[in-house]
Parts: sequence; C-alpha cells; structure tokens
Amino acid sequence: MKYGYGVDVGGTAVKIGFFDEEGTLLDKWSVDSRDPERPIPRNISELIRRDMERRPLSREDYLGIGVGVPGQVWRDDTVSAVNLGWDHAPVLRELVSGTGLKVIGGNDADLAAMGEFHYGSGRSATETMVMITLGTGVGGGIIVDGRPIKSAHQASGEIGHIPMNPSETLVCGCGNRGCLEQYASATGCARLAREALGACADPSSLRSLESVDAKAVWDAVSAGDALAGRIAGTYCEYLAQGLATVANIIDPEIIVIGGGVSRAGQILIDMVSGPYRRMAFNACKDTPIVLASLGNDAGIYGAMAAVLAN
Amino acid sequence: MKYGYGVDVGGTAVKIGFFDEEGTLLDKWSVDSRDPERPIPRNISELIRRDMERRPLSREDYLGIGVGVPGQVWRDDTVSAVNLGWDHAPVLRELVSGTGLKVIGGNDADLAAMGEFHYGSGRSATETMVMITLGTGVGGGIIVDGRPIKSAHQASGEIGHIPMNPSETLVCGCGNRGCLEQYASATGCARLAREALGACADPSSLRSLESVDAKAVWDAVSAGDALAGRIAGTYCEYLAQGLATVANIIDPEIIVIGGGVSRAGQILIDMVSGPYRRMAFNACKDTPIVLASLGNDAGIYGAMAAVLAN
Repeated sequence: MKYGYGVDVGGTAVKIGFFDEEGTLLDKWSVDSRDPERPIPRNISELIRRDMERRPLSREDYLGIGVGVPGQVWRDDTVSAVNLGWDHAPVLRELVSGTGLKVIGGNDADLAAMGEFHYGSGRSATETMVMITLGTGVGGGIIVDGRPIKSAHQASGEIGHIPMNPSETLVCGCGNRGCLEQYASATGCARLAREALGACADPSSLRSLESVDAKAVWDAVSAGDALAGRIAGTYCEYLAQGLATVANIIDPEIIVIGGGVSRAGQILIDMVSGPYRRMAFNACKDTPIVLASLGNDAGIYGAMAAVLAN
Repeated sequence: MKYGYGVDVGGTAVKIGFFDEEGTLLDKWSVDSRDPERPIPRNISELIRRDMERRPLSREDYLGIGVGVPGQVWRDDTVSAVNLGWDHAPVLRELVSGTGLKVIGGNDADLAAMGEFHYGSGRSATETMVMITLGTGVGGGIIVDGRPIKSAHQASGEIGHIPMNPSETLVCGCGNRGCLEQYASATGCARLAREALGACADPSSLRSLESVDAKAVWDAVSAGDALAGRIAGTYCEYLAQGLATVANIIDPEIIVIGGGVSRAGQILIDMVSGPYRRMAFNACKDTPIVLASLGNDAGIYGAMAAVLAN
C-alpha cells in the first residue's frame, strides 16, 4: 500500500489529510493559515515532514502531495491567490524542496469537485460532473473526461458569474451586474429574504430575527413558514436557471450541490428540481441533482485524487 | 502522403470532401440526401468507392472516413437523427462494409467546430474553443483539450437552449420558454425586428420590405439605418449574454461565430464585443470573438480532423 497527502489551503486554515492509495482518509489536521511567523509553504512542509518521520514508511511509500489553492495554478507551477498575497509565487516548488515528495497543485474548487467525483456524491459518474458551491459566493468545479476541465485563463467553471439578469442595478463582487452569485449564494438568499420581508406584511417567523441569513430562511422553510417557502421558491428559480444553463453546455452525468446553503438538505434538492426540469434541455431534464457528501473535506479528498491521477 | 474523406450529412444534401493528411481539401462533391432510391449509407459508400477506384492509390494510402451527422453518434457506433429517420441506425458499420475503410462518426456541430479549430478561424487555439452557429436555430460546438467535449446524453454545447428569459411567453422549438435561440438565431433576429417595427413609427428602410429577415436587418445596419441599428443592438445584447455565459463556464481561448447571421461580417463582431466585455467574467473579457472562415465546408474539414485525431 502507498500513501499521500491532500492539502486544502484556505484563507483562514490549511487542512491536511493523510490518505492511502485507495482514497481512505487515515488522519487529518488543520492549522491557521494566517500565522505571520509561519508562512504557508514552510508551515505545510514542516507538518508533513514531522508526520512522515513518525510513520514507519520509506520515501518510496509516498505517492506525493496534492494541494488545492484559492486561486490559480499556472503552467509553470507558480501560484496566484489574491487573498493569500501570492502572485505567481513558487509555493509548489517550495513544497517539493521542503518535503522531497512530488507535488501536484490545483484550484480549490476544481479539487473539491474532484473529491466529490472520486469519493463523494459524484462517484456514480464515470466521466462528467458539475459541482456548484453555494456559499458566500457561488463557485463551480467542472469535471470532464474524469479531470477538471482545462481552461484558457484559469476561469472555467465560474458559474457564479453567469450573467442572468440584464436589468440588475446592484453590482456583483466581480464588478458586473446580474450575476448568478447575486441571487444563488447564501448572501443572495439573505438579500432575497430581506426584499420579500420588506415588500409585504405577511406574518413570518423570520420577522422576529435580528438579521436573516440563508440558514434562517431554510430553517423556516423546514418549519413550514409560508413566506420563507416563497423566498426559497424564488431562490430556487435563480439556482435552477444556473443549473440548467451549465447542464445545457456541459451535459454532465450528475450535478452535485455543496457549500453552506446545501446544508438545507433534501428540501433544497426537492424545491430546485421542478424549476430545473422546466428550464433544462430535454436530454438533460433527468440529470440527477444531489447534495455533496464530503463537506469541508472535499478539498483534501480531491487533492489526494489529483495525486492519484498524476 | 495519406488521404481521407470528410462527410457532412445534412437534411437536404450530403457533402463529401477528399483531403490529404495535412488537411488540404483536394476535391469535393455534394449529393441529394433525400433520394429515396439511394439511402444515405449506400449512396456515400458508392460515391467513395467510385472515387477510390479512379485514384492511383492503394488501400493503405487511405486513413479513413469521418462522418458528421445531424444527431447523435452513440457509443455502440449507431446513429440517431430525427430528420433522417435514423434511430440507433447502423449507418457507420454500413459505411465500413461498403468501403473497407475505417469510419469515425460525430455530431455535425461538434465536427464543424473541429473543422474551425484545426483549419479555420480557431486554429490559433491549442486546446479550447467555443463555436456558436447562428442559423435557423442556435447551435454550439465545444472543443476542450483539442476534442469535442464528452457529454453524458449527447447534449453538451446546446448553447441555443440556455434559459435566458424566465418571463418569455412564446415557446421555443425545444418546448421550453426563453431559450437563447428565441433571440439570437436568424429567426430570433427577424422576430426582434418585427417587434421593433411594430412598437414605433420611426422611419426605416425595413418598412418597405414585404418580409424582414436577419439578412435584411444586417444589410440595413451596414447601410446606416438607425432603427435597424437599434434592432441589431438588442440582438447583440442577447447574443453577448449567451457568449459571456459559455465563456464563464468553458473559458475558451477563442470564440468562433458561424451560421447565416455571421455573414453580416465584422460589424456583428464589433457590435457584440462591447456588451460581451460588459457581461463576461474579468478573466474572459479579452477572449477573442471571430467570424468562422470555413463556411459550409466546416463540417467536412472537421470530419477529416476527426479521422486524423483517431
């Protein structure tokens, strides 16, 4: 049996998983990614070196390290990640010299999709999968032919920035107007709720809350709140339009929904499926839409999958 | 030097090209695809056999035959094409037994994209290209990693059926409402013109025409007709939304526009570029948008490219 490490570098924490070659997660840790005393590549190298020292394995038993980053991995193996202050930084090379292992890098959304594709809710698919992540923003990872789709400017799968509504007046974080993310993110869900609460006087448990976020909306939906149900219905119209759009272009075997809003559970799938069927192209109407199953570990699973695929 | 045939099967005509291995078109023919006396596979086989007999070449000099069909080529090499009455028909096997050559099949839109990618306006791209065809409908062909993207239900690249407008009341040919094709096809362009002409009394050269089609609109735009310019502007807003959507998902190196409406020429590119830049994700704003260059021959070029790639 051989082994490897899957690393998921985030803005606040670095997660590291130790896996066997069958993709079984044997051990995991998390460290602060903002420690100024310990810049990320050295921090990860030290952790992995210490872990390797305590295992009764030789160098040949390690397949390598997969690393997901919240940004771009360029063809020269440098990495850019605005939130981490990296601009074509030689992070991967530093990990190689720090550990002596092979290092494979990838975008974190792509690798989370790889994780779900190989070990999570997408594992029934053999070639093609779309993952959409409904968090503060809306992210996407597209698997074609068993791998993250290759893009020209490291921007494929930017599902959150599909232009949806030409008449939107508010500006999206990307600078455009009317992006899917403005409606289908957790932030967008909260905004739809505020607008609906302001536009009518219907009673709702949401009115007693100091601030309404996506979780509150979906909790109220599950509890049978009628106005929350209507807000969720509007949210699902936008989400379904985004899913049908991606499905008509990629035609995946399965669509996996992750991120904070997906914690609403099966009711989200149930509510989005009707509008999705209405909007998707005939051949794609029956494409299964499922909840992600690996949660925050999708990234480390996918990083290990990248090691195994290379 | 080796040689091959590229075949493009359409609803009214079958086009056949004879190519060398560098993709140079040496000869081409076209035959009626509706002749009840000569069903398509036999018709093509006979034509190719006769052509082979008159050339001083041996069997080993032929690489094979590529065939684009207006429908689906399944994994068992059967073909479905509603307009030709084929439902899992063994067309490709019949061509093999009729000619003794290797036969590679593909969807015609995919192969037209392969043609532009290898020999036409997309040949500057190395891996990723999106082709959109603006004809009676809106078709799409997506090249990823140098090949047509693999799909789950033979429905990838259905760019024409991206849901764009949830409030559309008219039904698209696919049965849904608000598809890109309802606005960005030649038919959609004519409809936008009829609506604009009916909604105002502004003078326009279009008013003197018995019926207004897309060509008339773009001819009037080129001639400086102000109302036609506004109609084209509206048309380009829809088209740009479609292109930005595909670009944000696929992130191609280049976008190629073909089909009847593309005969409007550079003015179409000039008019769509502004709204495209406004709607596309930052990393994709500078993606070149160009006119297709192979015209009706894109299909036979792409069919030959499929032979060379296999």
